[in-house]
Amino acid sequence: MSDLQLVPGNSLRTATPEEGRQLAVKLARLIIKLTQPDAEIRQRQRAIYADDPRMLIAIGQTVAAEFATIAAANDYWRTPPVVP
Amino acid sequence: MSDLQLVPGNSLRTATPEEGRQLAVKLARLIIKLTQPDAEIRQRQRAIYADDPRMLIAIGQTVAAEFATIAAANDYWRTPPVVP
Amino acid sequence: MSDLQLVPGNSLRTATPEEGRQLAVKLARLIIKLTQPDAEIRQRQRAIYADDPRMLIAIGQTVAAEFATIAAANDYWRTPPVVP
Amino acid sequence: MSDLQLVPGNSLRTATPEEGRQLAVKLARLIIKLTQPDAEIRQRQRAIYADDPRMLIAIGQTVAAEFATIAAANDYWRTPPVVP
Amino acid sequence: MSDLQLVPGNSLRTATPEEGRQLAVKLARLIIKLTQPDAEIRQRQRAIYADDPRMLIAIGQTVAAEFATIAAANDYWRTPPVVP
Amino acid sequence: MSDLQLVPGNSLRTATPEEGRQLAVKLARLIIKLTQPDAEIRQRQRAIYADDPRMLIAIGQTVAAEFATIAAANDYWRTPPVVP
Repeated sequence: MSDLQLVPGNSLRTATPEEGRQLAVKLARLIIKLTQPDAEIRQRQRAIYADDPRMLIAIGQTVAAEFATIAAANDYWRTPPVVP
Repeated sequence: MSDLQLVPGNSLRTATPEEGRQLAVKLARLIIKLTQPDAEIRQRQRAIYADDPRMLIAIGQTVAAEFATIAAANDYWRTPPVVP
Repeated sequence: MSDLQLVPGNSLRTATPEEGRQLAVKLARLIIKLTQPDAEIRQRQRAIYADDPRMLIAIGQTVAAEFATIAAANDYWRTPPVVP
Repeated sequence: MSDLQLVPGNSLRTATPEEGRQLAVKLARLIIKLTQPDAEIRQRQRAIYADDPRMLIAIGQTVAAEFATIAAANDYWRTPPVVP
Repeated sequence: MSDLQLVPGNSLRTATPEEGRQLAVKLARLIIKLTQPDAEIRQRQRAIYADDPRMLIAIGQTVAAEFATIAAANDYWRTPPVVP
Repeated sequence: MSDLQLVPGNSLRTATPEEGRQLAVKLARLIIKLTQPDAEIRQRQRAIYADDPRMLIAIGQTVAAEFATIAAANDYWRTPPVVP
């Protein structure tokens, strides 16, 4: 497999829900990067996503799925975060 | 990444299921906003969603997924809510 | 956001699985109503759903997702329900 | 809402995984029946599903989702079933 | 309903993750068999799946969903398996 | 069924989230390999995935689903990993 790092920081723990959400977006993007490694093509594709309502929704579903896992990993940020 | 706040209030806790559901809708919309930052284009796209049964259903699937996480984060509002 | 109530009764608790399933259907429909507030258009769209096997399946997926959350919220109705 | 019963037996408990799987199929079909109440049209649609690989897969996804909930409701049939 | 057995062995317990994964594939295929009982047609459809990247991905999503349930049923094979 | 191994190492346990993510990608690819065993055709299909934004998103959804299971199996890597 490519040596692209798929989990930034190699951890699912984040200090806050906001950071967890950003991690979810990154995880989703990194899978796209793994499958389409060419940065220029990805740049062009991002314009396609942004203009297609159907794809925007599908991206939202992906992020929701990644976030579900990250939220569970952080016990939904119920307890005060421990600095990793 | 953009400096758009992705989790309003930076918390998944809400006082009631109704507020949890509204948060789910907001989370879903904010990912769309992140991917398509142009407000005018999003306004046009919302008209497209609203007229396309297939997209309406897909939006429903996204909200359902976001809500599942929020509901778990609030222990399904089983216990009386603590004001955050 | 619209002032449409998204969770009827503002609770995920139901007395029985049957009522939980009906709530799942309502939750799914209310997101469609939120996105397409025009009752007449929704009426026309419902005829489109009903005639398109692909959409019927997609609606089923949405209800399944909503129901998963409601069932968990009710501890799968394992214990006798407490009247809410 | 229609008076169609959406959860046969009004219970998610089944004696075995096999019965749980059959219940998952029924739950999925009942949502289709709720949305398309005409038996003759549903009959025609079933022929369409059966011939379209894409729809067959989508039906499989719906059943998988329903089954996940039913399996959790039965604690994955780990303990000997109690006759309901 | 058809008398096709939907859960081989009528159990979600498997000795290993590998066997759990194979069971997930079987569960997914059996729902297709239930909806399309004609073996010859299914054979033709399998060729269609195999050549269509979109369907290959969708099959992967179905198996992932089935496997999630099976893995939970086996407590993720954390503890040494008990021969069923 | 084919004698292709579907779970590398026959375990869902990994030392880190990064390795868990890589396993998720592998699990997803192995289902595609099971359904389309011809390496040359898969190679051609991978070029198709990489150029189609919609498929890239769908692959992301599959990996997210596989990763959810793997993350749960590893208790979200909360506790220091035990070398398997």
